[in-house]
Amino acid sequence: MMELTQTQQDFREGMSRLGAAVNLITTDGPAGRHGITASAVCSVTDNPPTLLVCINTRAFAHDKFVENGVLAVNVLAAEHQELSGIFARFVEGVDRFSFGNWEAGPTGAPMLTDANVAFDCRITGRQEEGTHSVFFCQVEEVRMSAKARHGLVWFSRDFHHLVTEDQA
Amino acid sequence: MMELTQTQQDFREGMSRLGAAVNLITTDGPAGRHGITASAVCSVTDNPPTLLVCINTRAFAHDKFVENGVLAVNVLAAEHQELSGIFARFVEGVDRFSFGNWEAGPTGAPMLTDANVAFDCRITGRQEEGTHSVFFCQVEEVRMSAKARHGLVWFSRDFHHLVTEDQA
Repeated sequence: MMELTQTQQDFREGMSRLGAAVNLITTDGPAGRHGITASAVCSVTDNPPTLLVCINTRAFAHDKFVENGVLAVNVLAAEHQELSGIFARFVEGVDRFSFGNWEAGPTGAPMLTDANVAFDCRITGRQEEGTHSVFFCQVEEVRMSAKARHGLVWFSRDFHHLVTEDQA
Repeated sequence: MMELTQTQQDFREGMSRLGAAVNLITTDGPAGRHGITASAVCSVTDNPPTLLVCINTRAFAHDKFVENGVLAVNVLAAEHQELSGIFARFVEGVDRFSFGNWEAGPTGAPMLTDANVAFDCRITGRQEEGTHSVFFCQVEEVRMSAKARHGLVWFSRDFHHLVTEDQA
């Protein structure tokens, strides 16, 4: 690993102060079933419904997303904190999908049945920027429970739970 | 406004469950000083330090960002909840920058002196997707206090405060 410049160090420290939802990004298809934890997810436009996901090109799953051409964004609830860790760390011989309850979405990508919300998407574009790819994803299906669950956010290098009013 | 399709409605409802930091996106230059509230901000890569911001092309400030070619992302702390509202709503005759304490960054974009973190950026690319532009921004300077302040997040159509450990 190259040594970081001061600006890079400041950038990383600064980004730790941008609170963000914790998500499992999953895929299935010819390249197999894969999934990783990621927080860099943004809404882009609702016409057509589109979101974007930034993923390190050196992440094992990166090329699987490209090959399968589909992905699901599973937005975690507070109770999924442990699941977030399972999808963040590689452990030899462990099938990540043996944890949590999964159902295939219309594109085939695995959707977490009790996610706060899950977006099943077709990848419509990809742009490489330095170490990462920005995947542009058109949403084919949105699955969610009737009411929002407590949210899970990563901020200041720690998990935080967001309490929704009607579940407080 | 066109009627929304079911998928668009589901997309909006679903996106309300993706917790996100609240930020003031500001600019200054030939097109003048402008700023708006936005939550669609993502880290892209630290090599070179780059973030992205999604902004509605019909927002008044949109073309000002394009013309000035620079912007700052000011990540709000819990105490800035009111400031977030001031930058979110147009009020005739009100100078938004008369609220909060501002200093120009190296690019000239206004940086909020007590932001949780502020990124001064040069816009290096822009991609239009439906109703929105995705601005790719290279970070020239990061300003932050020694310790993170309590965070401000928008989730489930409400503000939430994130308590940092050493300030609890």
